[in-house]
Amino acid sequence: MAMKVALLGCGVVGSEVVRLVNEQSEELAARVGTPIEIGGIAVRRLGRDRGVDPALLTTDATALATRPDIDLVVEVIGGIEPARSLILAAIKSGKSVVTANKALLAEDGQTLHAAARDAGVDLYYEASVAGAIPLLRPLRDSLAGDRVNRVLGIVNGTTNYILDRMDSLGAGFTESLEQAQALGYAEADPTADVEGFDAAAKAAILARLAFHTQRVTAADVHREGITGVSAGDIASARAMGCVVKLLAICQRSQDGGSVGVRVHPVMLPVEHPLASVKEAYNAVFVEAESAGRLMFYGAGAGGTPTASAVLGDLVAVARNRLADTSVAEGGHDTGLPVHDMGETITSYHVALDVADRPGVLSKVAEIFADHGVSIKNVRQEGSGDDAQLVLVSHPAPDAALSATVEDLRVHDMVREVASVMRVETFAD
Amino acid sequence: MAMKVALLGCGVVGSEVVRLVNEQSEELAARVGTPIEIGGIAVRRLGRDRGVDPALLTTDATALATRPDIDLVVEVIGGIEPARSLILAAIKSGKSVVTANKALLAEDGQTLHAAARDAGVDLYYEASVAGAIPLLRPLRDSLAGDRVNRVLGIVNGTTNYILDRMDSLGAGFTESLEQAQALGYAEADPTADVEGFDAAAKAAILARLAFHTQRVTAADVHREGITGVSAGDIASARAMGCVVKLLAICQRSQDGGSVGVRVHPVMLPVEHPLASVKEAYNAVFVEAESAGRLMFYGAGAGGTPTASAVLGDLVAVARNRLADTSVAEGGHDTGLPVHDMGETITSYHVALDVADRPGVLSKVAEIFADHGVSIKNVRQEGSGDDAQLVLVSHPAPDAALSATVEDLRVHDMVREVASVMRVETFAD
Repeated sequence: MAMKVALLGCGVVGSEVVRLVNEQSEELAARVGTPIEIGGIAVRRLGRDRGVDPALLTTDATALATRPDIDLVVEVIGGIEPARSLILAAIKSGKSVVTANKALLAEDGQTLHAAARDAGVDLYYEASVAGAIPLLRPLRDSLAGDRVNRVLGIVNGTTNYILDRMDSLGAGFTESLEQAQALGYAEADPTADVEGFDAAAKAAILARLAFHTQRVTAADVHREGITGVSAGDIASARAMGCVVKLLAICQRSQDGGSVGVRVHPVMLPVEHPLASVKEAYNAVFVEAESAGRLMFYGAGAGGTPTASAVLGDLVAVARNRLADTSVAEGGHDTGLPVHDMGETITSYHVALDVADRPGVLSKVAEIFADHGVSIKNVRQEGSGDDAQLVLVSHPAPDAALSATVEDLRVHDMVREVASVMRVETFAD
Repeated sequence: MAMKVALLGCGVVGSEVVRLVNEQSEELAARVGTPIEIGGIAVRRLGRDRGVDPALLTTDATALATRPDIDLVVEVIGGIEPARSLILAAIKSGKSVVTANKALLAEDGQTLHAAARDAGVDLYYEASVAGAIPLLRPLRDSLAGDRVNRVLGIVNGTTNYILDRMDSLGAGFTESLEQAQALGYAEADPTADVEGFDAAAKAAILARLAFHTQRVTAADVHREGITGVSAGDIASARAMGCVVKLLAICQRSQDGGSVGVRVHPVMLPVEHPLASVKEAYNAVFVEAESAGRLMFYGAGAGGTPTASAVLGDLVAVARNRLADTSVAEGGHDTGLPVHDMGETITSYHVALDVADRPGVLSKVAEIFADHGVSIKNVRQEGSGDDAQLVLVSHPAPDAALSATVEDLRVHDMVREVASVMRVETFAD
């Protein structure tokens, strides 16, 4: 007997899912142990040609998601509502669910997982972070016997494309954004990407999985985008042997009692494996106690890669269903809380336009010391009116570092804080 | 009720498994749903202090592997026998098995999988390829809805360390090998690593999983090691914007009717993500139809990383057992045969010391043409007695390329074939 799939949404990803399920029906049947069949497709409006059998289309998504003959529901509508209500209705009718919905998972994953646990069904969402890269299941399953300390991810292709272009061509932010828009890498309204909202949702999902703490949501993520990154920042980074990347960073506190989750631009040494992630590619670097350093790299977006991840999940939940089992997530909840950005331990790179006269460095160093921040290295560039002091701090609480920068900003020996950016390296 | 594990072997990996199971007992219990407990450890000789409870030790591995109260068997003895007999005995007694044994999986995976299928138990072996990197299960599970076309892997840390050192320091092979031995990256007898035997076993396992073809064994893998790689080859590669890596390559033939599996040194463009894999790290690059380009990176060896992979498998098989299910592998066997190296489509880089006189290039080009090989680019370096012709071919059957090189070798205008190496790039 075939396993029947209800598809909610038939846009770029949805129509690719239909195509792949049809084209690979034999292979899928062999791998699952029974055929997989699209039982219905919910769309907002009928009548548009989507290249799928019109008889499958319906506008009543709730009826389709709860139809008795449906085994599995694939949600690729996106956004919070109606996706959440539909997924919850499907779960309550005993369907297993595959979704690519990062916004929903980030905002309310806890409710969805609890519902799936109660109903004894699967909720898989590999496609929600880093597109086609098999990442979430390895984090959940393969590293189940390990302890993850830190996750650093390039999880937004648009911003990586823009930063890569700024680095390789010396172009400015606006010019690079326009180029990304012209090539279809960035949307007409690029806010979700360039302000880090998209990456923040993914960071929340990664933190939940990596640290087995259900309570992290997108609202807990400290978020800074890349609109403030200048050609000067990129040049400063290069002078230090670094590139600038927008990273999603999930990190256990030093005492292990809480986690920090943040998205912001970072100067990263060129030797770091993430530094060589070019164009719109995604990659996630994981530091685990036993496994050591791991990296997962691949296409982060696009209809076909995302559909590939959905299909991988579909095979898994179909197999589970055939074996009458399910993978409960969130049953083992460490409940680790999220600490404030101010408590997160970071390092700063600070470039200051200063008056070139005796005592400047000593005064600047004093301001760092006043906040308990020690300086790792300092160099002076130029002289006279062009003198610039470039300082890199040792790791310190972010609050102390940002207070240091505020004091520098108002000090009369400092003409301008030309560049401030956090620096990440390998964990010690 | 606790899930009882029999550990076969207690060397570097085995003792790390014991340590991690004990240290993380609470977390493991939470993730599995029931405690995991070491029920016994089979060793060759008693009496040595291994830092484990001596009451658990036994020299009767068969009795332990088939003991009625044992649920799961972890085999970390390595080698073909007695590992194979022990695993088969365990499977026949209804135990699920986790192993790190690449040699055995590569030689006789088909028998082991068939036995596991018949007995309805799991056989997991994530640790056998690329140590701690979650790779085999993503290939098997996450890409289950996709079609893999090619796998390129740096799967041997020793040879990567040696080649990286030759590249970064300009050192020769022998000097670099000695350094690797001094640092513990290479064994006193380095044959298995430097001649590519270790990588060939892993290539066979990767090919089986990537193409769902059970019949590939280590004996089917075309194998060339790195002992012939000279400082000159590395310099030649660098002049072309390439680095030299020992790759395991598994590739579908163009008509899809067979697969090629090979291990040999390769010139790889520096832009390729595998090119930046340094030191003893491993990485596997996968080209899939829908998912596109993926890469998995991490530590390829070492007691703790390998034990981490074993633990990940242990959690998975324990969960499956609790749910009374198992993942059958090899049930869907495409049966794709392995074609000869001669039929594999490759490109060659050839550097020739030639007599610097008119007609040399035309003669050399004629030899390529005689074998139906077209030349992608050619450059002349030096002049007079130092003249060197460097040619890169377009893709052609390996047999035609190696016949071309044989003809060049005996031609009187060619003083010496200074360097021959295959070149790989991204798939088109």
